[in-house]
Amino acid sequence: MEACDAARPAPFKEILKRFEPEFKRIEAALQRHFSSHISFVNEISAHILFAGGKRLRPLLTVCAARLCGKDGDDPYELSAVPEYLHAASLLHDDVVDAGQMRRGRPPAYKIWGNSPAVLVGDFLYARAIHLASSFGDVRIARAISETVALMSEGEIIQLLHAKNPRFDEETYFKVIDRKTAALISTSCRIGALLGNGSERKVDALARYGLSLGQAFQMIDDVLDYTADTQELGKAVGTDLAEGKVTLPIVKALKEAGPGARKRLISLLGQGLPSKEKLEWVRNLLEATGGIAYTRRKAEALIASACQHLDIFPKTQVREFMKGLARYVLERKK
Amino acid sequence: MEACDAARPAPFKEILKRFEPEFKRIEAALQRHFSSHISFVNEISAHILFAGGKRLRPLLTVCAARLCGKDGDDPYELSAVPEYLHAASLLHDDVVDAGQMRRGRPPAYKIWGNSPAVLVGDFLYARAIHLASSFGDVRIARAISETVALMSEGEIIQLLHAKNPRFDEETYFKVIDRKTAALISTSCRIGALLGNGSERKVDALARYGLSLGQAFQMIDDVLDYTADTQELGKAVGTDLAEGKVTLPIVKALKEAGPGARKRLISLLGQGLPSKEKLEWVRNLLEATGGIAYTRRKAEALIASACQHLDIFPKTQVREFMKGLARYVLERKK
Repeated sequence: MEACDAARPAPFKEILKRFEPEFKRIEAALQRHFSSHISFVNEISAHILFAGGKRLRPLLTVCAARLCGKDGDDPYELSAVPEYLHAASLLHDDVVDAGQMRRGRPPAYKIWGNSPAVLVGDFLYARAIHLASSFGDVRIARAISETVALMSEGEIIQLLHAKNPRFDEETYFKVIDRKTAALISTSCRIGALLGNGSERKVDALARYGLSLGQAFQMIDDVLDYTADTQELGKAVGTDLAEGKVTLPIVKALKEAGPGARKRLISLLGQGLPSKEKLEWVRNLLEATGGIAYTRRKAEALIASACQHLDIFPKTQVREFMKGLARYVLERKK
Repeated sequence: MEACDAARPAPFKEILKRFEPEFKRIEAALQRHFSSHISFVNEISAHILFAGGKRLRPLLTVCAARLCGKDGDDPYELSAVPEYLHAASLLHDDVVDAGQMRRGRPPAYKIWGNSPAVLVGDFLYARAIHLASSFGDVRIARAISETVALMSEGEIIQLLHAKNPRFDEETYFKVIDRKTAALISTSCRIGALLGNGSERKVDALARYGLSLGQAFQMIDDVLDYTADTQELGKAVGTDLAEGKVTLPIVKALKEAGPGARKRLISLLGQGLPSKEKLEWVRNLLEATGGIAYTRRKAEALIASACQHLDIFPKTQVREFMKGLARYVLERKK
């Protein structure tokens, strides 16, 4: 964690405040490009796009571009691309997972039905790729389409392995690399490409994003068991309910005795567990080291993410990106 | 129909035979680019991609490129793009429409479930766009992403107007331009762009494709009432069952007396009609001129499509494209 700790200048909330003008410009770009001629499409798009997302991906695009010397409006325009892709994937994922809650609200498919959610997802994917191809750099368009292919593969692998107690750590990384880390990495990569960064710089930023994205998902998977429902914006235990085998569970299945292991498997994919059952799972994840193991791995990845940035001079933006990496470990939702 | 009739050199089946080598190269390109590392994805992709599709879209890409002087392998590689997009849209549309049959087989969502159909659709969209962006021409990537956005809009407008008896001809064209004609037009456009055709040539080919695509969908909508189920590969009356108001119905609703009008509306979106009811609808569509009106409009569009090609010298390829346009009017499935 040295590369990160050494750079800790102020609490992250204070740093975030300094970046308020950037957030405003990101919101403006998101507003500018998402709209369809069909108001029904806009309504659904807005429901998912403007519901308190963290804007992590656009922020990374802007920061990566800036680290490569690119200022002005273009990074903000481009930054809408990964956020639209993210929104599109959430629309489809909620259909796929039959998710019950998203950012404290019912997901689009529950309000408008499966079909509009699928079709508006398609529309947002197309909008994102269209915007990505408007910068005249085919490398950007290519990175984006490769990422969409990976994201759907990640979801499919996860689907194929639902409730599978033989799901191992290697498969876990196959899933999270594709469904989460690929887009976070690509958010950085396209910013660096827009800034015409050298291959070394593009590579460093993409690797920073990949490690950050892996850690981000791992903390997500921890929070799914340890967070507060109110704060999380969805029910705790959702992954268990949907039969998703995440790293805390992989570890617990490996370390638990045969009785506990059997009981844990029986709870996978059986809908939301009762308070008592969830408490039992949480205790098992603590006792077997599932939570601690996942956190430790995430911390190592964040340290590695920060190290990748050390090829850049120490600027406010670089330090902010390191702060962002640390924030991933600290977040409560 | 002059521009078409004047060029009629031989029955279309004979001409098609002469293009067998082209079809083989198209199939080879389709095989080359669709595969994922995940065999489950390949299985679903293959189910929709290799089930006796007509390959109209790839053929148009190859022909348009050739009319603009582009030979060699590239047109075949590019021609896989619109076919993948088509396959992806079919996967999603069958989920959206709850389609019961596709090319004589149950659709993917009925075999593997909604989620894999949605995700493999996403994967194929991404593969198509990735392939499109590998030609180093952002105009191609842009045309493709614009088309995907239009296709999803078309499906959404159709969904919003299901069972709507006030659906008019203008809205009908809004739907078919987006859901069908846009991709057929784009299949031509990207071929012309690959061939570095002048703006005039690109435009002429895109217009040919648009008219062809509109006529194609209109004949589809006629066949949905007049075809033979065996030949069609799905039940006759499917549009009626799904509540889709197509041009024959628009015309019938306009011309029918109040009693017949009321009965027709009551049959929209009520599942597959009985033989007697379907026969009654078919007779109404004949009596009100719904079928003849739609056919006439399609014929005019095909004539216009052929005229757009008259800026090109009279070559075997040009005549083939005119033959293809005529075939759209003659097809039985």
